[in-house]
Order: sequence, then structure tokens, then C-alpha cells
Amino acid sequence: MKPVVNQNAPRGHYTPGMIAGGLLFVSGQTSADPATGWPAEGGFEAEMQMALDKMESVLLAGGCTRKDVVMCRIYLPDMALWDRANAVYGAFFGDHRPARIVLPVGTLNRNCQVELDVVAEVPAP
Amino acid sequence: MKPVVNQNAPRGHYTPGMIAGGLLFVSGQTSADPATGWPAEGGFEAEMQMALDKMESVLLAGGCTRKDVVMCRIYLPDMALWDRANAVYGAFFGDHRPARIVLPVGTLNRNCQVELDVVAEVPAP
Amino acid sequence: MKPVVNQNAPRGHYTPGMIAGGLLFVSGQTSADPATGWPAEGGFEAEMQMALDKMESVLLAGGCTRKDVVMCRIYLPDMALWDRANAVYGAFFGDHRPARIVLPVGTLNRNCQVELDVVAEVPAP
Repeated sequence: MKPVVNQNAPRGHYTPGMIAGGLLFVSGQTSADPATGWPAEGGFEAEMQMALDKMESVLLAGGCTRKDVVMCRIYLPDMALWDRANAVYGAFFGDHRPARIVLPVGTLNRNCQVELDVVAEVPAP
Repeated sequence: MKPVVNQNAPRGHYTPGMIAGGLLFVSGQTSADPATGWPAEGGFEAEMQMALDKMESVLLAGGCTRKDVVMCRIYLPDMALWDRANAVYGAFFGDHRPARIVLPVGTLNRNCQVELDVVAEVPAP
Repeated sequence: MKPVVNQNAPRGHYTPGMIAGGLLFVSGQTSADPATGWPAEGGFEAEMQMALDKMESVLLAGGCTRKDVVMCRIYLPDMALWDRANAVYGAFFGDHRPARIVLPVGTLNRNCQVELDVVAEVPAP
């Protein structure tokens, strides 16, 4: 097992990513801005982008890129944002389409409008 | 990484399944009938069966069967349906019993009464 | 694939753990006391400890320890318990910090205040 740490200080007892079995498991990434601890400003699209960017930061620290994401779970307190989440997500991943599930959850920490976690394949050395 | 595609056209930016690390990650499968986009008709048992059948369709497209399912997550907006979900699930899997979690979530897309995702082991070639 | 069974009789169609791809997938573990079927007595900390202990029981049955946990998902019906969950969790894991996500969900079976599932790395023989 190999821990993966990026520049964002975890709030709580976890490591941003862990590698095992050739897979990188990325911890949940909310839309909170690491600089403030509060949801990214600029509306839902900015929040979705923040969560994706934070996730990618862990991927890169673990030797992966967004093209290596195998499975993504997206958690939305408000499923009415599904289409807008999908639009930002599609633009982020381009022609790479991981397996995915989008799930309605309760109110997230600090009222973030989205959280996600991913599993990525670690490229052979 | 190897994408797995069945006959159901995804609604949104995802692939029905992705293989990595010897595992097939299947995207979330709701009880929506692919022919209509709405929950399968016939009550909750029909919805549960639909989600399982759609999941199996991805398994088969990826060279797996239901016997290869390692872990299943079942998402229910109404946990009062737990026993009924378990009955259909048990009949589907027979003597194969994957690891499992059943979780209460918010209202699913188009008011589907169940969604599930699975991880399966890809048989050695 | 290798099933992992501990002493707790499953309620429903599942196996406590399944090994595939070098990983042990542990079924959802609520804070219900196996002796009674109801939430562990003693308040939230006792419930959190129960869920962790039950999870560890599956790990040990599968040849793993808590140090082998790669990813943990924690499900809380009441996110106000986040800090208290984190405290018990941190004490349990000590200097090992798995990747993690904490998610707000609906009311759990028998009103348990927490459920969790984990993926662990199976040590090389």
C-alpha cells in the first residue's frame, strides 16, 4: 500500500489517496475551496470544477491523470443539478468516460453542493 | 483499462463498465426501463429485477457473469423496501452471495425506487 | 474470488467479505450489536466503536488487519456527529490513515447512527 499526499491538508483522519492492487483510491473531494474551507465561489459550476480539480490534484500526486479514472461516484444533495454537474464533468473528462454513479445524499459538510470520489488505475511503471 | 459497453445508451457522460486491476466496475444501474426511460412497470419487484438485469447485461458484455460479482451497493430511497429488495436479490444470485451494503438515499432520478452498482472479478482468460 | 466469513450471522443475502484482485471488500457494517440486533448501547461513540469492531472482525477473518484498510466509507444520518465519528475513527486507526469519505445518508436500519464499509489490501502470502 502506498499513501498519496497532495498539497491540501486533510481535515480529519485520512490520506488524500491510497494505492493498492494497482488502483488509486481517492478520498472524497467536496467543492470546498482549500484556501477558505468554504464552497468555491461562483455558483454550482465553480463548485463542480473545484471538486474535480481537487480530485485531479490527488491523481497527479499518485502518478495518474484524469484519463486513468476507472470509476467515479458523484454525490449531490440536489439532484436538480444533475444536468449541470454532467456538463462540467463531461467537459473535464472529454473523450474519457469512466464508469459512474450519481447519488442523491443529504446536506454535505459546510453546505457544499457536490462531493465525489474516484478509483483510478495506476499506470505500469 | 478496458471499456465495457452493452446495448443501453448511456444518459450522461459515462461508460457502462470499466475494467482495471482485474476488476469490472459497473456504472450505477437504476430501475428505469431502457425502452422508456421510466421506472419498470409492475411494482417494486419489477424495478429491482430491472436494475439487476441491466447490471447483468454489463457483466456479460465484460466477460463476467452474476457469479463474478464481488461487491454490490444497493441504494434505496425507501428503506421499508429492504426485505422486498433482499428477496428479489437473493433469488437473482442464488447460492452466490457477494459482499454488500444497502444504503438509504434521497429521491432517485425519475423517482426510481432502486439503484445499484457492483464490482466484479474478471475471469482469467 | 474467496468468501470471508466471521462469526456474525448475516441478516440478508450477503457474505461479510469477498476477496478479489488482491483486495478484500467488506460488507456494510452498522453499529447494531450482533448480540441484540439493535444499536450498541452507550451513545454514539459506542456505536462507532461497534461498527469499527465488526469491520475489523471481517478483516481478521480475511487475513488482514486494520493497517491494511485502503479506503473507508462512513455513512452518517446526522452529519453533526462528524467530529465525534472522526475522533473514534482516529483513535481506532492510530497512525494509519486510509483514504476516506464521509457521507450523509437517510435513516439507517433500526435507527443505527453509523454504517461503514471498507476495502483492504490482502497481504502477500
